[in-house]
Amino acid sequence: MITVLCGGVGGSRFVRALASTIEPERITAIINTADDDEFHGLYVSPDPDIVTYALAGEVDEERGWGFRGETFRWLEHMRRFGHETWFQIGDRDLATHIHRTRLLRDDLPLSAVVADIARGFGVRVRLLPMSDDRVRTVVETDGGDVPFQRFLIERHAQDPVRGVRFEGAGAARPAPGVLDAIREAEALFIAPSNPIGSIAPILAVPGIREAVAQLDRPRIAVSPIIAGRSLQPPAAEMMAGLGHVVDVTGVARMYAGLIDGLIIDEADGDRAAEIEPLGVRCIVAPTLMRDEAARRHLAAVALDAAGITP
Amino acid sequence: MITVLCGGVGGSRFVRALASTIEPERITAIINTADDDEFHGLYVSPDPDIVTYALAGEVDEERGWGFRGETFRWLEHMRRFGHETWFQIGDRDLATHIHRTRLLRDDLPLSAVVADIARGFGVRVRLLPMSDDRVRTVVETDGGDVPFQRFLIERHAQDPVRGVRFEGAGAARPAPGVLDAIREAEALFIAPSNPIGSIAPILAVPGIREAVAQLDRPRIAVSPIIAGRSLQPPAAEMMAGLGHVVDVTGVARMYAGLIDGLIIDEADGDRAAEIEPLGVRCIVAPTLMRDEAARRHLAAVALDAAGITP
Repeated sequence: MITVLCGGVGGSRFVRALASTIEPERITAIINTADDDEFHGLYVSPDPDIVTYALAGEVDEERGWGFRGETFRWLEHMRRFGHETWFQIGDRDLATHIHRTRLLRDDLPLSAVVADIARGFGVRVRLLPMSDDRVRTVVETDGGDVPFQRFLIERHAQDPVRGVRFEGAGAARPAPGVLDAIREAEALFIAPSNPIGSIAPILAVPGIREAVAQLDRPRIAVSPIIAGRSLQPPAAEMMAGLGHVVDVTGVARMYAGLIDGLIIDEADGDRAAEIEPLGVRCIVAPTLMRDEAARRHLAAVALDAAGITP
Repeated sequence: MITVLCGGVGGSRFVRALASTIEPERITAIINTADDDEFHGLYVSPDPDIVTYALAGEVDEERGWGFRGETFRWLEHMRRFGHETWFQIGDRDLATHIHRTRLLRDDLPLSAVVADIARGFGVRVRLLPMSDDRVRTVVETDGGDVPFQRFLIERHAQDPVRGVRFEGAGAARPAPGVLDAIREAEALFIAPSNPIGSIAPILAVPGIREAVAQLDRPRIAVSPIIAGRSLQPPAAEMMAGLGHVVDVTGVARMYAGLIDGLIIDEADGDRAAEIEPLGVRCIVAPTLMRDEAARRHLAAVALDAAGITP
């Protein structure tokens, strides 16, 4: 079993790359759910949905989230009733949220709901939310505390980040199967997701960081930072706000003790010498997942770095 | 003030006809809510929505319900999750249901929600649900009890009707404003709606039938039955199942004591002599609301019968 910790857009591309290279059934993705939120009375779970839609081959490749060819008719109508519509939920996407909200109201745990939705899309990778409990990323700004989606989408990640906290994380338990998926992994990957917005909340659930730290198998991360910039907003903004160096050395420092290897882009090849003293081996490769070929190449590099034979 | 008791498709056309003839602000529509139901965790209220969309000029004229040019993308996606999709909720329509469900969960009474939605559509007629309390039409068939929407839409009103009951009606209270709208009416109309499926549940709410019976102003009904057939299913099927004669005399008998006049179609002009002994004056006119001109003509006939000057 191969286990991946991941967030949404960047993470889903990496999981999809792995799933097109090895048997999807060998892969377990542990997905950030601290971006979950409620809109219009519906429970929205952005990262698990992005991973699901990506693995189903239905994601909008350009945006990285939502469905290809999506429409937003229902949302246009919500304006009549004075609702905010900055959170762009499409007509098709809405079916997922309505289905999920109903199952949660029927007291199904989030992990069962994530699995049910993945099944509906024929996804063969095993998807686990990091926790069935409520954890919420709150971004602390000069204007006050802002929930993650509002910070990212409504405010375009433009407020300087003064702090980030994961509300509820301290009391959350890993979802069923999460700790076993880490402990029994042949190899563990940290996807090129936002280290603070996506990976840190997973690691903040008691037991998960420890399990990763103790894993005696190859643990490989892919840097989401290339040449000092993040592939997806707002990783760089959040790293800068919390005082991290916004480059691959900053990523390596955050993951030190949790990974054995870090895949960095060719643009950052000269930083390897600064990273290796942290006990993190550097693998230099093209990391931009521009297209199917680039994705497959990155997956092959990652699997090779972990000693996994496809 | 003009007050109208009405259901969905036929009722909405009549209310719209009145509203294009006299000031919409003079009209109060008391609408059946015993067809309300829950689908996919959303509270659906077919008759108030049909009246709202019709008055907003956005209804699909052909079907008589839903929006013109509606799409059903979200519903197609619900199939993935194994949901029944016989109840056709469109993408735009869905916004209304999501908005309503949220307001109801926030403990707003249905009457406030109906008013809020009407306001969102710029509707100037005052819309009142018959009750804020839960009343549900259950159709008794040989195969068991069937909720009204399921009987009508999923089963195409094909099961012989053995009985009809309005669950909850006995304990329901008229919504705020309903009794006053009847008592203070200059004229009261019963729209050409299903007498059993739409009008009877309104009259079953304690206090409403009595207020109509005691009203000392012109009370005029429009027959939904023309030449022994109903304009909209399943009025005829339900009348037949309950042992009523399926023609204008059957309608007159159901409303005897509640109305002073009954507008019947020219096709039924020869039945007037059977009806007038019931104490119901007959007004013979074309009643098919085929187009705007026909609707306006019927409204003029009705207002004239009630002695109302536009």
